[in-house]
Amino acid sequence: MRTVRIAVVGVGNLGRRFLRLLVDKEETLAAKHGLSVRVVGLADSGGTATAPSGGEFDLDHVVRWKEAGRSVSGLPGGTEAGSSMALVRDADLDVLCEASPVCVEKGGEPAVSLIREALTRGIHVITPNKGPIVLAGAELGELARAHGAELRFDGTVAGGLPALYVGTRDLRGAAVRRILAVPNLATGYVLDLLAVGTSWEDACRDATEHGILEGDGAWDLDGWDTAAKLVILARAVMDCAGSAGLDDVERTGIRGVQTEQVRRAEAAGGVLRLLATAEAGPDPDPDCPDRLTKLNVEPVVLGPEHPLAGLGHTEMGVVFETDIYGTITLKIDEPTPLPSAATMLRDLLDIYATV
Amino acid sequence: MRTVRIAVVGVGNLGRRFLRLLVDKEETLAAKHGLSVRVVGLADSGGTATAPSGGEFDLDHVVRWKEAGRSVSGLPGGTEAGSSMALVRDADLDVLCEASPVCVEKGGEPAVSLIREALTRGIHVITPNKGPIVLAGAELGELARAHGAELRFDGTVAGGLPALYVGTRDLRGAAVRRILAVPNLATGYVLDLLAVGTSWEDACRDATEHGILEGDGAWDLDGWDTAAKLVILARAVMDCAGSAGLDDVERTGIRGVQTEQVRRAEAAGGVLRLLATAEAGPDPDPDCPDRLTKLNVEPVVLGPEHPLAGLGHTEMGVVFETDIYGTITLKIDEPTPLPSAATMLRDLLDIYATV
Repeated sequence: MRTVRIAVVGVGNLGRRFLRLLVDKEETLAAKHGLSVRVVGLADSGGTATAPSGGEFDLDHVVRWKEAGRSVSGLPGGTEAGSSMALVRDADLDVLCEASPVCVEKGGEPAVSLIREALTRGIHVITPNKGPIVLAGAELGELARAHGAELRFDGTVAGGLPALYVGTRDLRGAAVRRILAVPNLATGYVLDLLAVGTSWEDACRDATEHGILEGDGAWDLDGWDTAAKLVILARAVMDCAGSAGLDDVERTGIRGVQTEQVRRAEAAGGVLRLLATAEAGPDPDPDCPDRLTKLNVEPVVLGPEHPLAGLGHTEMGVVFETDIYGTITLKIDEPTPLPSAATMLRDLLDIYATV
Repeated sequence: MRTVRIAVVGVGNLGRRFLRLLVDKEETLAAKHGLSVRVVGLADSGGTATAPSGGEFDLDHVVRWKEAGRSVSGLPGGTEAGSSMALVRDADLDVLCEASPVCVEKGGEPAVSLIREALTRGIHVITPNKGPIVLAGAELGELARAHGAELRFDGTVAGGLPALYVGTRDLRGAAVRRILAVPNLATGYVLDLLAVGTSWEDACRDATEHGILEGDGAWDLDGWDTAAKLVILARAVMDCAGSAGLDDVERTGIRGVQTEQVRRAEAAGGVLRLLATAEAGPDPDPDCPDRLTKLNVEPVVLGPEHPLAGLGHTEMGVVFETDIYGTITLKIDEPTPLPSAATMLRDLLDIYATV
């Protein structure tokens, strides 16, 4: 039995569900994968908590505590004065799970610095946070390699869909000519409300009330979330997208979409979705056979013949057009954020599991 | 640069395309994966050929030779008296690629014995041949573990779709409650011909003339191929399907399908397909939480809401219903057998690639 000591920074929608999974899957992890996962550090916006030396948290209690809206600083071993940085420096950790909210506006901070610190110490990092990966992925990847640590971020693209793993492993040997992706649920939710006659204002209010849009909604509605996911996926899977950034994406969000447009799409058996496209062109330059010719995000009608046709508002999808593996389409239906949280378990098992 | 010495047994539809891939991808394999693949042995129904000591075959020449309908026994180093068993015993091999036709009627022979011999010698085995895997998978898997060899068979399920890799790796930690799969192209081809008014006899003749049905067509039409793929996938992905066999599948092929049935399905926006289903029931027995309650193959109308709705006749698909990763659907469009052949490259890279 291998013991893995982890800290979870960010105990919100995803972090809390991940902790619950560690409780629910304790037996499976032990019996099938020989793993005993001990959570020894926690951090949220209210402070930190550290388990006593050699001990671990009662996760069942932690989850209920967080569900009641309290900060981890009120738990045994907790302090309002603690910082996640101090946690990474002082706790004896194998893995840091960075599950705090997206932070692109702040240059990916504080997540970038925290992940940098962990990797430099040889601590593996798992994060579904797009901020640090889209803004500093290359630097962090180098740092991980230099220090023999793993940096995993399966949850940054299309929720619980293993698009990154399929793209980087199962498509090995192939050239990916084109990626088509609908990796964002919030825009689909709003578009489907428009389709049934809801006004733009009411649709956005409904999505906000259901926790589907956050803040002013710009991150989703203006296509930033979709663009970030596209960049992370394209960089990982297409050779010449290696240095692509958010600024390289031609981006049109869904604010300009007219109700009539959505209804016409549905009447024709299609569905309007915010589609992300990355396209590589055949290039005579042998040093760069997959030169990127297109990286864009825009609302598109997916007709009945489209590989992502009929995507419901709890569904996301990714299409890989390849030279030798044909066209491979992945879809996920995730009615709750559980699959997104479970990507941290997937990443953890990918690092440690021997079976 | 790592040199990998392989023998390819069976140089037909898949084996030949795999050899062509090794030529086309030589630079990629070297530059991206640090691999130099040398084919040192070949076998087909007409005999064998062995490369001179320290040498390798000119694959370009071999592929053209085979495309002209000749046996490898006519190549330099070839002999009509050679056997694939002698090849495995005498050649200095790292990997055996067993790509001969399916051989379920003959108890999986000669593939089972050949794979057994290779694994016992510590030679990795890659095979898209369902025969040995569905009939002797458990024994061969044990043998591989005992001798520190890898046994890979990604190509046995749904052509180039990485269903086995996704199911065994990316769904780690999850319980798979249900698998739905349309893993056979020949039945879809025939059903789509029926839908446009072709008679059963003409549809089968057309499929045979296009090389889509082989022999008397029973392997595909009676659902054996679909059943074999279901068993291989379910065993790999569902805990309590571990000992399932072909005899456990309730199997109805497509011979009884009426043209009117196919047309009605299409008129209602659906498509008739030979669907494979494996279902695990919640079971109070803690030692067997995923007791198998259903393993069947039958023609089913996939309506517009089905995750595999709209599958074309060059498409296959697999749906995994899980407890923590939502419902994940994989589809592949493979108009030629290239993706199926490329699974051998995927398996090879999975064994050796460090990136």
